[in-house]
Amino acid sequence: MNCYDLTKMTWKEVEKSLETVEFAIIPVGAHEQHGPHMAESCDAVLAERMAIKLGQRMFPYAIVTPAVNMGVSEHHIHFPGTITLQPSTLIAVLTDMVSSLKQHAIKKFLFLNSHGGNQSTLNLAAMTITKKLEVEVYYAKTTASAKESIGKYVKSPLFGHSCEREVSEALYLAPELVREALLEKGEINQGGRWERLRPGKAVQGFYFYEEMTVNGCIGDGRKGSREIGEQIVEEALDHLADELSELLDLKEELLY
Amino acid sequence: MNCYDLTKMTWKEVEKSLETVEFAIIPVGAHEQHGPHMAESCDAVLAERMAIKLGQRMFPYAIVTPAVNMGVSEHHIHFPGTITLQPSTLIAVLTDMVSSLKQHAIKKFLFLNSHGGNQSTLNLAAMTITKKLEVEVYYAKTTASAKESIGKYVKSPLFGHSCEREVSEALYLAPELVREALLEKGEINQGGRWERLRPGKAVQGFYFYEEMTVNGCIGDGRKGSREIGEQIVEEALDHLADELSELLDLKEELLY
Amino acid sequence: MNCYDLTKMTWKEVEKSLETVEFAIIPVGAHEQHGPHMAESCDAVLAERMAIKLGQRMFPYAIVTPAVNMGVSEHHIHFPGTITLQPSTLIAVLTDMVSSLKQHAIKKFLFLNSHGGNQSTLNLAAMTITKKLEVEVYYAKTTASAKESIGKYVKSPLFGHSCEREVSEALYLAPELVREALLEKGEINQGGRWERLRPGKAVQGFYFYEEMTVNGCIGDGRKGSREIGEQIVEEALDHLADELSELLDLKEELLY
Amino acid sequence: MNCYDLTKMTWKEVEKSLETVEFAIIPVGAHEQHGPHMAESCDAVLAERMAIKLGQRMFPYAIVTPAVNMGVSEHHIHFPGTITLQPSTLIAVLTDMVSSLKQHAIKKFLFLNSHGGNQSTLNLAAMTITKKLEVEVYYAKTTASAKESIGKYVKSPLFGHSCEREVSEALYLAPELVREALLEKGEINQGGRWERLRPGKAVQGFYFYEEMTVNGCIGDGRKGSREIGEQIVEEALDHLADELSELLDLKEELLY
Amino acid sequence: MNCYDLTKMTWKEVEKSLETVEFAIIPVGAHEQHGPHMAESCDAVLAERMAIKLGQRMFPYAIVTPAVNMGVSEHHIHFPGTITLQPSTLIAVLTDMVSSLKQHAIKKFLFLNSHGGNQSTLNLAAMTITKKLEVEVYYAKTTASAKESIGKYVKSPLFGHSCEREVSEALYLAPELVREALLEKGEINQGGRWERLRPGKAVQGFYFYEEMTVNGCIGDGRKGSREIGEQIVEEALDHLADELSELLDLKEELLY
Amino acid sequence: MNCYDLTKMTWKEVEKSLETVEFAIIPVGAHEQHGPHMAESCDAVLAERMAIKLGQRMFPYAIVTPAVNMGVSEHHIHFPGTITLQPSTLIAVLTDMVSSLKQHAIKKFLFLNSHGGNQSTLNLAAMTITKKLEVEVYYAKTTASAKESIGKYVKSPLFGHSCEREVSEALYLAPELVREALLEKGEINQGGRWERLRPGKAVQGFYFYEEMTVNGCIGDGRKGSREIGEQIVEEALDHLADELSELLDLKEELLY
Repeated sequence: MNCYDLTKMTWKEVEKSLETVEFAIIPVGAHEQHGPHMAESCDAVLAERMAIKLGQRMFPYAIVTPAVNMGVSEHHIHFPGTITLQPSTLIAVLTDMVSSLKQHAIKKFLFLNSHGGNQSTLNLAAMTITKKLEVEVYYAKTTASAKESIGKYVKSPLFGHSCEREVSEALYLAPELVREALLEKGEINQGGRWERLRPGKAVQGFYFYEEMTVNGCIGDGRKGSREIGEQIVEEALDHLADELSELLDLKEELLY
Repeated sequence: MNCYDLTKMTWKEVEKSLETVEFAIIPVGAHEQHGPHMAESCDAVLAERMAIKLGQRMFPYAIVTPAVNMGVSEHHIHFPGTITLQPSTLIAVLTDMVSSLKQHAIKKFLFLNSHGGNQSTLNLAAMTITKKLEVEVYYAKTTASAKESIGKYVKSPLFGHSCEREVSEALYLAPELVREALLEKGEINQGGRWERLRPGKAVQGFYFYEEMTVNGCIGDGRKGSREIGEQIVEEALDHLADELSELLDLKEELLY
Repeated sequence: MNCYDLTKMTWKEVEKSLETVEFAIIPVGAHEQHGPHMAESCDAVLAERMAIKLGQRMFPYAIVTPAVNMGVSEHHIHFPGTITLQPSTLIAVLTDMVSSLKQHAIKKFLFLNSHGGNQSTLNLAAMTITKKLEVEVYYAKTTASAKESIGKYVKSPLFGHSCEREVSEALYLAPELVREALLEKGEINQGGRWERLRPGKAVQGFYFYEEMTVNGCIGDGRKGSREIGEQIVEEALDHLADELSELLDLKEELLY
Repeated sequence: MNCYDLTKMTWKEVEKSLETVEFAIIPVGAHEQHGPHMAESCDAVLAERMAIKLGQRMFPYAIVTPAVNMGVSEHHIHFPGTITLQPSTLIAVLTDMVSSLKQHAIKKFLFLNSHGGNQSTLNLAAMTITKKLEVEVYYAKTTASAKESIGKYVKSPLFGHSCEREVSEALYLAPELVREALLEKGEINQGGRWERLRPGKAVQGFYFYEEMTVNGCIGDGRKGSREIGEQIVEEALDHLADELSELLDLKEELLY
Repeated sequence: MNCYDLTKMTWKEVEKSLETVEFAIIPVGAHEQHGPHMAESCDAVLAERMAIKLGQRMFPYAIVTPAVNMGVSEHHIHFPGTITLQPSTLIAVLTDMVSSLKQHAIKKFLFLNSHGGNQSTLNLAAMTITKKLEVEVYYAKTTASAKESIGKYVKSPLFGHSCEREVSEALYLAPELVREALLEKGEINQGGRWERLRPGKAVQGFYFYEEMTVNGCIGDGRKGSREIGEQIVEEALDHLADELSELLDLKEELLY
Repeated sequence: MNCYDLTKMTWKEVEKSLETVEFAIIPVGAHEQHGPHMAESCDAVLAERMAIKLGQRMFPYAIVTPAVNMGVSEHHIHFPGTITLQPSTLIAVLTDMVSSLKQHAIKKFLFLNSHGGNQSTLNLAAMTITKKLEVEVYYAKTTASAKESIGKYVKSPLFGHSCEREVSEALYLAPELVREALLEKGEINQGGRWERLRPGKAVQGFYFYEEMTVNGCIGDGRKGSREIGEQIVEEALDHLADELSELLDLKEELLY
């Protein structure tokens, strides 16, 4: 399948693609610990792979930019190797990217984000960039919309980081990220402060990830599989493509 | 009931209170349109009133600071009278407040927020202030935890701004905010772009509130009542007080 | 008397008011110690009350915005409870407010300030906001122009903070701020460095307020009265209304 | 007379001087129009010359740094040649200077300022630098303290910029700044908005200098003389030296 | 050969590696047009590949971080697809990276840069990060030190961007970047302003790349080869490894 | 010879000069140690003197602004008396200067810089100011283009700071900067880390000047002379004037 992948194109190819391109997909990842069984570039790689797959589905309307391969990972900073950007830095990077692409006549943008810790920053980035640069900005969590598949296959009460869902996605999209021989269940610190601060609780707050899990995982990565990953990813891509086609009013006949 | 309300205290009274105070409650509101039936200071006033009520329940452990009476309201800026702070400005205000209070030996903070549009900024503020000032920062949406009462009384499929829930809260906490003779149902723009961007959808993005509602309301404010407001507010206060007592490890016997 | 008080208005009421409104009054206060006999919100409350009174006099030309209820109070930071904004934060708040209101077609602004420590910041804010947003910006110290009344009633050689002048203003405008049973004379540190740095001296410089006064007051609050407050406040309002009518070229017949 | 003039010293000479130096004098000027009869560097040059003279009087306790030769001159920007710094830029320059000098063990600073338009910025700089760098910061208007001489010789009701006072100071300190053949009286725009915004008026605000004076001067430069300048300058130096000796607790016997 | 590639490691593997790691290699690239014959990610990919090769030579002392895959490319912004970061953004990204890695006890850093347009920014980043974070910061242009090979094989008078040198490096390190069928000579605008602003000229200045070359290349990419690339790259790696071993005082016996 | 020296002109003279002025020369210097034999203002003074001489040659096309008399001197900060600006501060100063002068209709600028440590900052300033203010920005190292004279007279293998070249320039342009009786050869720390980081080496990095030279000089100042200075300065001025005439397309007949 075709995809306008900006990293692989020459300027003449870009110039040609801009005849049909309606929006840019900016993959946003992170560089952070993913337990003993996943490589630290996990989120960066998954965001990039998802972006390419979405770019294929949205061809010739979408162009995929270079990935933002580090994000807001303060929660994980105490685990060796984690790198975190300040939210203001991430917003600056995205602002510069959108500003540059706007000079090439692209006016609509999707931040395709694989890392939950980036969501608040992307929410603010969408608002401030819309205002400052007079463009249209959307953002999406890569596979959050795969509710049916996730409901069916992901059974851990606490999941979302280096769990069976993420391991599955990686086994489908980038199996080199997974140490299959080392897969572990999250080693949860029961009764910690974090339990009172999870989404849906009355109070939220900042806590470090080691307060929640000794090995850096939650859920149970051992229960992941390539097949589950495929279900989740493809369901999410269906939803993303549908929504974007409507939002951006794309001519369906041209897609694929 | 007693409450340490910093705005009403002299410095000698503050000095005395600090013998027992464990944390500060910082009310965070907004100044923005609330349809034809609520005053624009709605969120600022509700945050302040909730903070006082929570301060009473947490006496002598909590002290309530001046309210942040404007917030991030870019979504509403096209309605006359709305004032919006940039997210960076709100973070600067909160940072200065925490920094000042830390000089008075307060080390734990709750941002008690009445306005959904502030949540992402508060999430980032909690993280960056924790890191920069080495304090403990929590934040909560004032009545979001009143799930039982809201489930029971709030029936509009789309609610959350100048709706029956908010009108009810105001009728209980600050009835002067409500124009009872002018109560209206939200005049929703069906089929707008906003429908595809609501929480839970595959894609999020920034949109202006007039894309969603002609009169600036959602839900149905006519269905609000003081009694519903009391149920919601008191349930939320129960949850907030319980969670904070645990999180901050307060001695229950001293409370009240 | 009527007053356009933005905090109490709905957006439809604001929309209507904008047919005559020529300028916005932005009350600017502070949150800082005011000795053993005044509440810490003193400046915020007085700025707000003065703004309403001025808004009444300038009706239907003026609209009063939410108060900036914290200011630049570094001098007082060592007294319990004081909160200070950095000057850059205060300028950011004012810039966002003016920028928002300009979107509602308001082009002229008065920062009505009750706290001497804010004056330098407001001077710079007036200049930078004028330049950046192409608006007309004025600022005034609430009662500084009441020279006759102050000359007549305020006899302490050193006054200006929690003194007979401020106590009088509060007794007239917001008596709940005053602990009448606790009124004290300023307990001045004679011979301190501060004496050499007062306005009019050859050298100025930053000093902390406790270098000057042990109890946080200057002057003699015991000599204040509601009557003196009324004289000062009403004289100041006369001057402010006169000057603004001229500066903004308001049609006198419409006033009142 | 001796003076530690940092611009003229080698590092070994600086090293030696630091054995007695207690504080640094930072001359702060401006680059702005001074009417048809003074050069635009007027304030920069006068600040520098005054600093040297004060440095002589305070020898061996004071060291004079390079001059800040541009300042906050927005009021004058419409006159050809004027250069203005943003207040934040001037504060950055001063912060960097103090930070550098603190690394050489200097802990006390005087900003010796010749330009009224810088005063608010210096007030804020003194406060923020004191807090950030834990140093002692003073500032002074070069000749403002010469009240006796000014009262005696300066008779124009409106003076302070390229007037007889400033012309006199220049004739004494730096006669090359003055075009004696071109001396003019200020050509005042009577009845302008500026009249309502002068110091002491009920309302202040930003206005451009051409609103006040057609030729860029106020007062009457023709009435200045070298003798008057000498009186003003020497009286001011007396006051500055006296105050600083007290403030910095300098041993008088060492002076001169 | 072994290499500590942080993107591919788990946190436990990072933890182990830190027993010997002495410094981090941060690859810094760009995303910009590279003429009709190279993909726009050229600099990002070459920086990453060089970093891995250098990391192999410096094993077990070096760890390679995620690449900074966009840089300062304002010169190229008018060619379709180019993305440029503001210098302040690039410095913020590098500061956050170094700050994060310092928390993992890494104290020495090499910015390994493939893009000339980043050099000034890296020079400033090295200085400011050294000062702010108290670390040791080095930077190097990937193959600039291969003077012998370049002298021997690169004959175009003007080279350095998508020329025979860069094409050769890519053919050796990442041949997928090159469109071999489309290789072109730079189409130089003779006599343009740029000629007077090249390095070594009396005056420098900012110009856009299209002022210099119509097709976005200089030199003659057709003359590049994998063999030349190998010579250049390996010579550069020799020099880099030698210098770093000395600078960081690494025990030679452990290398490889 | 005539020169438009902005510091010495009145606004009416500036107004007249703008009829022919095509560009502004902004002298950029530094305040930093120059060994035991040169005053610390060396770079500031030399930049200013060179600017005047260049302004004479470019009359009536050039106008010389006030000098930026401090620069980026972090390398020298450990020598007593050195003052350093952060790069962001220097860029802010230059941005404000250009912005001001653009309001007087000047659209082209030359930063004439005497201090190597400023070059990277000026490179970035040229780029960012060009973009932000839509002007044409050039920069030049004062005498770097005098390659013939330098090749002939400067024989030290390591030179460039308080060496025979700089001493010579000063003896010609500003002999008061030189302590002729104290002239010393640079006291070089052989074998230091700095040797591996000099221009042309494989790796660059930040180091402090005392790592390289004990007395703060390099080269051999004793070998300087006024005659050598004259050769270098006049050769450089020839080159600068030639290049600028071409770059700015000045009518030669008007020059001189």
